[in-house]
Amino acid sequence: MLSAALQSDLSAVVEGVNMMWVLTVTFLIFFMHAGFAMLEAGQVRSKNVANQLTKNLLTWSVGVIVFFLLGAAISTIVGGATGGGSYSVVGAFADLYAPGAGSAGAWVNWLFGAVFAMTAATIVSGAVAGRAKLRAYVGYTILLAGVIYPVVTGFTWGGGFLDALGFYDFAGGVIVHAMGGIAGLTAAWIIGPRMNRFNDDGSVNVIPGHSMTFAVLGTLILAFGWYGFNVGTSASPLALSDSGEVVLGSFQTVGRVALVTTLGMAAGAIGAAAVATYKTGKVDTLYVANGLLAGLVGVTSVTDVIVWPGAIAIGLLAGAQLPIVFEFVEKRLKIDDVCAVFPVHGSAGVLGALAYPFAATAFWNGNASFLSLAIPQVVGVVVIAVWTFAATALVFGAFRAAGQARVSHDHELEGLDSSEHGVDTYPEFGRPDESGARVDGGTIRPDGGTVRARSGSTSAETVSDDETETDL
Amino acid sequence: MLSAALQSDLSAVVEGVNMMWVLTVTFLIFFMHAGFAMLEAGQVRSKNVANQLTKNLLTWSVGVIVFFLLGAAISTIVGGATGGGSYSVVGAFADLYAPGAGSAGAWVNWLFGAVFAMTAATIVSGAVAGRAKLRAYVGYTILLAGVIYPVVTGFTWGGGFLDALGFYDFAGGVIVHAMGGIAGLTAAWIIGPRMNRFNDDGSVNVIPGHSMTFAVLGTLILAFGWYGFNVGTSASPLALSDSGEVVLGSFQTVGRVALVTTLGMAAGAIGAAAVATYKTGKVDTLYVANGLLAGLVGVTSVTDVIVWPGAIAIGLLAGAQLPIVFEFVEKRLKIDDVCAVFPVHGSAGVLGALAYPFAATAFWNGNASFLSLAIPQVVGVVVIAVWTFAATALVFGAFRAAGQARVSHDHELEGLDSSEHGVDTYPEFGRPDESGARVDGGTIRPDGGTVRARSGSTSAETVSDDETETDL
Amino acid sequence: MLSAALQSDLSAVVEGVNMMWVLTVTFLIFFMHAGFAMLEAGQVRSKNVANQLTKNLLTWSVGVIVFFLLGAAISTIVGGATGGGSYSVVGAFADLYAPGAGSAGAWVNWLFGAVFAMTAATIVSGAVAGRAKLRAYVGYTILLAGVIYPVVTGFTWGGGFLDALGFYDFAGGVIVHAMGGIAGLTAAWIIGPRMNRFNDDGSVNVIPGHSMTFAVLGTLILAFGWYGFNVGTSASPLALSDSGEVVLGSFQTVGRVALVTTLGMAAGAIGAAAVATYKTGKVDTLYVANGLLAGLVGVTSVTDVIVWPGAIAIGLLAGAQLPIVFEFVEKRLKIDDVCAVFPVHGSAGVLGALAYPFAATAFWNGNASFLSLAIPQVVGVVVIAVWTFAATALVFGAFRAAGQARVSHDHELEGLDSSEHGVDTYPEFGRPDESGARVDGGTIRPDGGTVRARSGSTSAETVSDDETETDL
Repeated sequence: MLSAALQSDLSAVVEGVNMMWVLTVTFLIFFMHAGFAMLEAGQVRSKNVANQLTKNLLTWSVGVIVFFLLGAAISTIVGGATGGGSYSVVGAFADLYAPGAGSAGAWVNWLFGAVFAMTAATIVSGAVAGRAKLRAYVGYTILLAGVIYPVVTGFTWGGGFLDALGFYDFAGGVIVHAMGGIAGLTAAWIIGPRMNRFNDDGSVNVIPGHSMTFAVLGTLILAFGWYGFNVGTSASPLALSDSGEVVLGSFQTVGRVALVTTLGMAAGAIGAAAVATYKTGKVDTLYVANGLLAGLVGVTSVTDVIVWPGAIAIGLLAGAQLPIVFEFVEKRLKIDDVCAVFPVHGSAGVLGALAYPFAATAFWNGNASFLSLAIPQVVGVVVIAVWTFAATALVFGAFRAAGQARVSHDHELEGLDSSEHGVDTYPEFGRPDESGARVDGGTIRPDGGTVRARSGSTSAETVSDDETETDL
Repeated sequence: MLSAALQSDLSAVVEGVNMMWVLTVTFLIFFMHAGFAMLEAGQVRSKNVANQLTKNLLTWSVGVIVFFLLGAAISTIVGGATGGGSYSVVGAFADLYAPGAGSAGAWVNWLFGAVFAMTAATIVSGAVAGRAKLRAYVGYTILLAGVIYPVVTGFTWGGGFLDALGFYDFAGGVIVHAMGGIAGLTAAWIIGPRMNRFNDDGSVNVIPGHSMTFAVLGTLILAFGWYGFNVGTSASPLALSDSGEVVLGSFQTVGRVALVTTLGMAAGAIGAAAVATYKTGKVDTLYVANGLLAGLVGVTSVTDVIVWPGAIAIGLLAGAQLPIVFEFVEKRLKIDDVCAVFPVHGSAGVLGALAYPFAATAFWNGNASFLSLAIPQVVGVVVIAVWTFAATALVFGAFRAAGQARVSHDHELEGLDSSEHGVDTYPEFGRPDESGARVDGGTIRPDGGTVRARSGSTSAETVSDDETETDL
Repeated sequence: MLSAALQSDLSAVVEGVNMMWVLTVTFLIFFMHAGFAMLEAGQVRSKNVANQLTKNLLTWSVGVIVFFLLGAAISTIVGGATGGGSYSVVGAFADLYAPGAGSAGAWVNWLFGAVFAMTAATIVSGAVAGRAKLRAYVGYTILLAGVIYPVVTGFTWGGGFLDALGFYDFAGGVIVHAMGGIAGLTAAWIIGPRMNRFNDDGSVNVIPGHSMTFAVLGTLILAFGWYGFNVGTSASPLALSDSGEVVLGSFQTVGRVALVTTLGMAAGAIGAAAVATYKTGKVDTLYVANGLLAGLVGVTSVTDVIVWPGAIAIGLLAGAQLPIVFEFVEKRLKIDDVCAVFPVHGSAGVLGALAYPFAATAFWNGNASFLSLAIPQVVGVVVIAVWTFAATALVFGAFRAAGQARVSHDHELEGLDSSEHGVDTYPEFGRPDESGARVDGGTIRPDGGTVRARSGSTSAETVSDDETETDL
């Protein structure tokens, strides 16, 4: 038994060290926004790049304020209300708006939660690229950050009924990624495909992204940030034992988390490369990149509780399903999921969560029965998927009914950069093409108007203000 | 009271943990150079990209050596001389060149200071893009790193007279950012605008940057690094109390710092988006990105001492002033601040420092009077602004008087990449335009000469060595 | 003497803090893959960018699994077998596949080793860009990760005979970088230059990379990650002394490491800029960037044991040799080292290791004789160079003998993106050039086929499956 003075000393060490780790990984997870921005920008046409970038910037900027003012408290309330614990509506807000003295970590922990929330939010923008109205997208982001995602975390990490049931999601493979992927698929379905994506005879056109380099850069930034996302979820390096001694906290399993994350990501790239090569005879770069991400998603929910051969297996499967599910979504469902967010985040996340019992250390050690692990996972996935689908369909359905879900035909043809933002992402590199989308811009031009690239025109022109109506 | 042996133990823990944090955030702040490089490169024409990148590389490379050999000691000396403390000129250098045994952290702390210094330095390059001679720019960087910036830190963080007066700048909103922004504006004013930027009749031409994607990538890298910049300035997670016990050090307020940084950045993007949309009817992507940065600058000086609604307010204002101040600089002052460094770093930094008393926790708690907070801020801003303006005007004025401040008309037309660096940034993507700036390059060419893209020519050509005079 | 309970407490603190640091820097080093991907992508033609990116993704994905399943254990075995220590073949695998309870750090330490291994592997891809078959490259990567590199680490860090001899390499200036650089040069020599790189009369053609911006971005990402690479190699911030007290561990020298890394990098950029400017009259951007990296490589092996003026000297030399060695490799050896990996990683790494005795603190303090420092370095460099050269030559020689080392002439002309991966990196930006390499693509096209850009064609076309044979 240590003296009280010493316990106080060590308690400060534990608190300080743990906060340092949480902050470090929070920064890494925040950086994933740069990854998403580049990954998505690379996968859209050059006429829609600035729109994609703006959506990413606003997802963070608008979403994080909403999550502070509303979302985090909603999560606490939902967790308490559905989990049977005691909770206070006023207290949920008060603890965040004005945490008491001595709670140095309250806002640190909020920010740690916020970067997960914003990851879920930003996934959606990749699915609806190239035609969603900025107004509709930002409106949905506000609801996602304020209510839709907090309900999911309330059910689970916040101590709600799925948590009580035993649903396990270590770092958000379902709660964050599958949620975002399902939301994206739903939104893409409701607002419909980009023009010329599908032909009247049911055949499919490929609309290639404008820069593989940005897409791969985004992939690698995401993988970097994902180490924070997964490994960082081991959020308490040190802990005080019941007898007041310092022990390793969640760092007891951090080696497993680091290994599983690494093997899952590597196997994902290999799985996707193999299937893509089997199908087309070539190693498609974008499938390798997205496969690496799908592998990461696959292991995210179970990173600390599976055997390492299970990580390789889940990674391979998560990568392998990517080309197959993408084709299914495209050719059967006829949904235009531009950046493949459903196969990368949605189905891969679900796959990982459902594969848990097969790969669980507890199962292989004989400490848990297969069904005791499997049933909560199935229930959790179904509940989260249904809620996410329903809420997203409702919101985008309402926007569609109001005629606010997507830009006009002319604006889509012209490109959202020009019509929604009044900018030209690459004014010196474009050239006319048969879709009329890109025209020569970038020449020095008088200020006061807004350059617009118009269908059928081949040069930038200055337009008067009354012509600059917007789809915002 | 703990035993001496234990105190020694805990002292090593505190020292090691604190060093780990300082190193981590120092690396993040260093990475901001990649952010500045991309942000600035994206905002210049494609004929000047390599020049901008080279300036960024040399700012760091030349500047950090000068700051080690000279700048850091100057700061110590100025701090001692103006603050009334004791100091030794020889000691200021000796403590850095040859710190004694046991001072493991001396060079760590130097590097922590150096990344702040280099941030101030690199801001300037964005203002003078597209026409400053490399020689002049590097010359100014040497003086900035060796003297101009160290005088500012000497006055303040180094214990000088502004510090004694009570001037408060937590992480460099004024000391680093406003200083850099004011220096950039001054330099841009003295060397004059790019050709064709302003017409004889006083009207203004917009010269769009070549890649919005790189600009936004740079923005997000900067935001990532900024978490190091702001949150990292809480540089002592742990501390030893007077009685030798371990307590949280500056991590007592790190939650506030993390929250304020996040809310300020988000509000900055929203503020700029709102004003830009009000003015033009469209959500200009570059204003959203730069607004996010202006929001960060706005809260940087006061991150640990304001209430969170104040962070939202300062962020909104810092973002909102961006389009207005940019237009004022452009249309009234007729200064060609290419990358908007003054509205982003200069006026936003000043705004945050002056807004301090309105948002201060001490004011709202009744622990400090408004004027006791406001007066030192006003004095500090004025002193730093006047010093920075005067020193920068003197240096660039001297270069201009010597005919060394900007490249020749022909070289500016040709582009600085070719004339100053002999390279073509995008040899496969360019195309001729009416300014003659970009021509087809990038073909395979014999070595031994230097490819030059000439005004009026439409293909790369090899030139003999005697033609390759340079503006260096 | 502290009580047993307290020692247990402090031991957990030391273990947790050290793991936190190792994980943080491991993530930074992992991020260097994004740096290499961008640096290399920027230095190749636009028709080969996706190929370069795919190689980088697969280097990590395939390599890291091989290094887990095989490489790490090989290193342990080679270390034991050549160093005279006891070792167990089975144990080398068992300790990794199933570390005992209580060894929370085993997999963390493996990952720390893996990111170094993968850095060595990825360097090679830059040398053989634009013509190596994907199959050959990935095959070589498997052997490098499984055997070739682990033999080098076995000889050295793993306790083998070079370690016993006194060979010193702090963070892998020779073991990782020179190894990678020599392997790259060897591979480039064996597979031969890109077409049109050298003329029949012995003269040389320059084939400029497609984007200086991506190259510089990669440089700065690498420099960021390098802080993890070098400073992070001070991998034990805290330690327990023999008497059980907590002391600073390798953080005793971390200040020196941080300073030397910073000065070496800065001096490298300056050294390369100076020589390039002396030779051509212009400040070549790519030499500045690669010079910065060469400076980093130069100090990497000796970061913690040299005086700081030595860091500046080694950095300057490592930068200065870059243009000279590059020209020697190109014009004398006629080897097409596309991304200059030998001068940046190979010769710079050797230079730093051999310069050690001149700059060693031990030499200047009189604690070690020049020869006692110099001889092990020479022996170590020779052994590692000979082994790397021989193993690489054998592997690529075998691929060449089997006709599998490089793609066909037609595929090289067409570009590897199309022929190996079936993708077009920039479908909206290309234009025809006289080499026939880039043609207009990027139009909306029916799915089911693979777009191919063909020599002599000016538009994308859909090809039937039987035409899509691949060089994979």
